[in-house]
Amino acid sequence: MKISINDIARLIGGRVVGDGQHEVSSPAKIEEAAADQITFLANNKYLDFAFTTQAGCIVLSAQLYQPQITANCIIVDDAYQAFSQLLQHFQHPSAPEISDRAFVHPSAVIGARVHIYPNVYIGERAVIGDDSIIYPNVTIYAHCVVGQRCIMHAGAVIGSDGFGFAPTEDGAYHKIPQLGNVIIEDDCEIGANTCIDRATMGSTIIRKGVKLDNLIQVAHNVEIGEHTVIAAQTGISGSTKIGHHNRIGGQVGFVGHISVAPYTQINAQSAVASHVKKEGLALSGTPAIDIKQHFKATVVYKDLPELARKVRELEMLIQQLKNGEHTS
Amino acid sequence: MKISINDIARLIGGRVVGDGQHEVSSPAKIEEAAADQITFLANNKYLDFAFTTQAGCIVLSAQLYQPQITANCIIVDDAYQAFSQLLQHFQHPSAPEISDRAFVHPSAVIGARVHIYPNVYIGERAVIGDDSIIYPNVTIYAHCVVGQRCIMHAGAVIGSDGFGFAPTEDGAYHKIPQLGNVIIEDDCEIGANTCIDRATMGSTIIRKGVKLDNLIQVAHNVEIGEHTVIAAQTGISGSTKIGHHNRIGGQVGFVGHISVAPYTQINAQSAVASHVKKEGLALSGTPAIDIKQHFKATVVYKDLPELARKVRELEMLIQQLKNGEHTS
Amino acid sequence: MKISINDIARLIGGRVVGDGQHEVSSPAKIEEAAADQITFLANNKYLDFAFTTQAGCIVLSAQLYQPQITANCIIVDDAYQAFSQLLQHFQHPSAPEISDRAFVHPSAVIGARVHIYPNVYIGERAVIGDDSIIYPNVTIYAHCVVGQRCIMHAGAVIGSDGFGFAPTEDGAYHKIPQLGNVIIEDDCEIGANTCIDRATMGSTIIRKGVKLDNLIQVAHNVEIGEHTVIAAQTGISGSTKIGHHNRIGGQVGFVGHISVAPYTQINAQSAVASHVKKEGLALSGTPAIDIKQHFKATVVYKDLPELARKVRELEMLIQQLKNGEHTS
Repeated sequence: MKISINDIARLIGGRVVGDGQHEVSSPAKIEEAAADQITFLANNKYLDFAFTTQAGCIVLSAQLYQPQITANCIIVDDAYQAFSQLLQHFQHPSAPEISDRAFVHPSAVIGARVHIYPNVYIGERAVIGDDSIIYPNVTIYAHCVVGQRCIMHAGAVIGSDGFGFAPTEDGAYHKIPQLGNVIIEDDCEIGANTCIDRATMGSTIIRKGVKLDNLIQVAHNVEIGEHTVIAAQTGISGSTKIGHHNRIGGQVGFVGHISVAPYTQINAQSAVASHVKKEGLALSGTPAIDIKQHFKATVVYKDLPELARKVRELEMLIQQLKNGEHTS
Repeated sequence: MKISINDIARLIGGRVVGDGQHEVSSPAKIEEAAADQITFLANNKYLDFAFTTQAGCIVLSAQLYQPQITANCIIVDDAYQAFSQLLQHFQHPSAPEISDRAFVHPSAVIGARVHIYPNVYIGERAVIGDDSIIYPNVTIYAHCVVGQRCIMHAGAVIGSDGFGFAPTEDGAYHKIPQLGNVIIEDDCEIGANTCIDRATMGSTIIRKGVKLDNLIQVAHNVEIGEHTVIAAQTGISGSTKIGHHNRIGGQVGFVGHISVAPYTQINAQSAVASHVKKEGLALSGTPAIDIKQHFKATVVYKDLPELARKVRELEMLIQQLKNGEHTS
Repeated sequence: MKISINDIARLIGGRVVGDGQHEVSSPAKIEEAAADQITFLANNKYLDFAFTTQAGCIVLSAQLYQPQITANCIIVDDAYQAFSQLLQHFQHPSAPEISDRAFVHPSAVIGARVHIYPNVYIGERAVIGDDSIIYPNVTIYAHCVVGQRCIMHAGAVIGSDGFGFAPTEDGAYHKIPQLGNVIIEDDCEIGANTCIDRATMGSTIIRKGVKLDNLIQVAHNVEIGEHTVIAAQTGISGSTKIGHHNRIGGQVGFVGHISVAPYTQINAQSAVASHVKKEGLALSGTPAIDIKQHFKATVVYKDLPELARKVRELEMLIQQLKNGEHTS
């Protein structure tokens, strides 16, 4: 696909400086782009590249533009957003189809324009909404529901049994049947090899617009609120409710049976061990506390041996002072 | 399936209060249950729902029963256990079959009534015991052995090569062949996308009744003792031996070549960095120490900046006192 | 396969003590080996077994040899390396083939002697180099490139979309198309269920000889330098560059957009939160600091309540001293 700079400017609503007739055929990073490629500049940090790039065109934010830049430019308000919009024009999505290498149970309900790749398993009475994409080797267990415009990356597992066992008198465990399902609402993206367990009863629920990264664990009866984003390798224990618009880092752990308020931000590798009741907090640490307080504590932490040494020294000094009193 | 309250009471050994002829057809949570559903009450925390639920029947523990509850009740000693037992009657397990969409090596030995779902891979000379269930997209490498009544959830990998490399003189690594296998004994459940590596020589062993949650890493030559349960995303390094009846939280890490005594409990996100020799300890932290000691340390941790400030203040005060001595 | 001790000695370059005609047919651990098996002894810790083992032959390091050992021996310089070399002779690798149960896109380019197991997915225009092994249920997305002699373990996902979203004005997220790919160079091993995301633009790059363990997350636009080894469940955030010859423990997290110098060692469960500029450092902790400093801090950490108590005591003592001054 070749497209002229003028056409791109119309598409993303920008102003051309340079040769608007020049054509480009793919996007590239500013330090790697060639004459038939288009790139972007949204961050002052990369400004130097604007003077040396071989790119056929730079989409750049108005405040970064300088007349000395000799490359063709499209000037926009927000280069990052404009370029992200442009990238969609360079995508060649495959036509939706249901691979005959996928297993789809006859009782499953598959919406319109759904793309199901090879080696997918979709169980009994599962439902997949319109325009969703199910990548290879995804497993969707029986009775689970996936909304419209969802993307499920390779290896994701939806609806495996929750981890529920009752101890028996002889020290073994008895499996508690997991009879619920998983409901994933519209516009969600589920990362590669992420696991979402079915509820014991009722549903594990992923609300509209949630984005989960790779290798995340979502236990039974969890609920994740609308437009919450969670980075890779985070784990959420059973029955915990995460509010809407949370932003959660990677490798975070949540204990079970807690509620986290909307608009909470959790720093990577933290452990959330109790309810978060107030909206909009930023938390960090194990257990998670106010992020600023935690950062200050980490600074002291690394000098703990020095702090301990000072305390020992103070003890000696005080002992000397006390002795001094007695002897003086 | 419809079943009367009287029949259920006979099944789980309870006493009916209310209309024993009333029929229910599925289980539900107490706050969501309808008139044709049965629910349970085992925790005082949810007692209020007992007065407002629409459930056709509540299975509840004797000590929680109150005459003011107007819903039909079945009174039992332990409502949680009784209801868990009842849930099995509402399950409709699919008839066991070996999907022709699964790959089973001709030399593999598959027991009676084994259910193998589509997209499973079972390698050369692998063995699957009677009554086991292998969910979709599971991989069982050559020579691995799975016992009877095991459940392997989707995407689990059994018998991938252990992570063993010997450095070479030119700074690269030479792969150490991994010639052993994995043995999973009877009555184990292995979570979705959990990985158990084959031994270098000998076997990685998961003993009878072990329950592993999702996304767990078990390295080569590890042994996990009978009836140990491990929550999601925990990792166990090579050659470590976990004793029987351990209860291990999520996101825990174990270094290699250590032994952990029976009946140990490890709190989530801990790091076990050395042998645990005494039975029945409860540990937490990185590195893991006594759980109570760790909790006390976390309380001080969050106030470390304040502690450091106090020490600086004490230093000044002592300096003043010393100066005072000299000047007085 | 039976092989005489004399033949093995020739193969690994060692000296026979005992019956060189004796034949063995498989390797085993020293404490489990039988008369038709060969074992090794490289560590003084296991020396006692050398006197009691039933093994048909022990490969052992020269400095561990003692005349009192009655078992047949092959004496070598480095028993570990020699035995590792020997193990390859006991392997029976399956002949390379492309399973007709795998999906390989017609436009994919597959090298010579590549072994592709059942249930693998290889997308449009993907490239697999000569002599690589792709185990079951691996997904390689379109346009990704795998080098020669690579091993991809079961369930690995190569080329899933990077986790990139731009917030919209209504509080939702807009997907940023991920148009790049993943390049895995020669001689890499990728663990089971490990995920490597495609770049937004350009490539996520795994350099020659890198070894990744299971369940690792590699985000978009990451680069991992040559001969770096990473243990299980570690996560690397977007655009971070890991230098060559790093040795990284399990469950480590890296923030995005940082560079880590060559020859860095990172202890398990650490969090690398900023650039590592100097080569050859050993780091540990959250955030990661010098490993010795961190270990000293952990020692103080567990006694923090005691430290806090001492500070309170000092405060009281000083108060008494001050009061004493005023009253004396």
